[in-house]
Amino acid sequence: MSGSGLFISFEGPEGAGKSTQIGRLGAQLGHAGIPHVLTREPGGTPLGMRVREVLLDPALTIDSLPEFLLYSASRAQLVGNLIRPALRRGDVVVCDRYADSSMAYQGFGRGLDAGLLRQITQAATGGLTPNLTVLLDLDPAVGLQRAARRGQPDRLERADLEFHQRLRQGFLTLAAQEPQRFLTLDATRPEAELAARIWGAVQARLPS
Amino acid sequence: MSGSGLFISFEGPEGAGKSTQIGRLGAQLGHAGIPHVLTREPGGTPLGMRVREVLLDPALTIDSLPEFLLYSASRAQLVGNLIRPALRRGDVVVCDRYADSSMAYQGFGRGLDAGLLRQITQAATGGLTPNLTVLLDLDPAVGLQRAARRGQPDRLERADLEFHQRLRQGFLTLAAQEPQRFLTLDATRPEAELAARIWGAVQARLPS
Repeated sequence: MSGSGLFISFEGPEGAGKSTQIGRLGAQLGHAGIPHVLTREPGGTPLGMRVREVLLDPALTIDSLPEFLLYSASRAQLVGNLIRPALRRGDVVVCDRYADSSMAYQGFGRGLDAGLLRQITQAATGGLTPNLTVLLDLDPAVGLQRAARRGQPDRLERADLEFHQRLRQGFLTLAAQEPQRFLTLDATRPEAELAARIWGAVQARLPS
Repeated sequence: MSGSGLFISFEGPEGAGKSTQIGRLGAQLGHAGIPHVLTREPGGTPLGMRVREVLLDPALTIDSLPEFLLYSASRAQLVGNLIRPALRRGDVVVCDRYADSSMAYQGFGRGLDAGLLRQITQAATGGLTPNLTVLLDLDPAVGLQRAARRGQPDRLERADLEFHQRLRQGFLTLAAQEPQRFLTLDATRPEAELAARIWGAVQARLPS
């Protein structure tokens, strides 16, 4: 499904430490001499970066469905132009957020129909699913505190706590549906411990 | 389906004279004292204007599916925030391009699956279909000549003549499928003649 490479996504709320763990995993892959690409959603392509600016602009009002369609547009461009070519080369692709984020944010969070989201995601990705999804699970109250420390909260971060609680339940539900794909970790554990568990899960899935 | 107002879309290739005829129709509606809103796709809302800039930026590479998803995002926001509220007020809404453009450009033109386009369009519009669609039909060679006269051609206009021929056939096929909704006019006829035929079709559909 994903060619000869390995496709890894990181999911979880704002402030769970995704960027830190992705950085550590990138360094580990580098030390091990494994060709890899780090990317993110929305973004990762020139089109995706423009869509990202639009999505994260706090001055814009964006309804739930157009929001999902914009994420899907960025995703479709990323899959076709970066992820699939990298997987075909045999690279490890590490993506900061992927389709599970849409299911969690726009489905569980904003109440869009899950069947519709799945259909459009299937079309946008051509069915490409990560081999491993690392879910950094965090209590919403703690996550918002962490994100606030990094400066001006963006549109997503300003949304209310109740929304973030639905989001957490969404991620945990998705993880429960695909236990083979998901590695769910308590994001409050020490960084080094999380990094070791993630590296173990990646090594177990690397082609020998 | 469209509340108590009247929803009119204009379709056709670049250079067919849509803007001119929309301007004339707007003036006619004004003279008749009929509350109306003129809008366009992509655009028509703050989000739509941002999406429009992205779609028409000749420096960006955009694959067919993400292109369609961006149009659909702009459309969903426009329907929810401008078209439906105006129709509920009883206004006449005149839209420069609507869902038929996606069927023609991304379906017939770029070869995306028509069933998929219809499904996503149904979701993006909630099934809102124009009461009247004016198709200004034009030979592609003539249309490109007209557009070129207005300055630097944009990304859509630079696409090749063969694409524009598929596009024309697409619009004509859509019109043939819904003869009650479409008013198909030869765009090379004199402006005043076209305006009179359009005004006649609008008057026939206005609530008495």
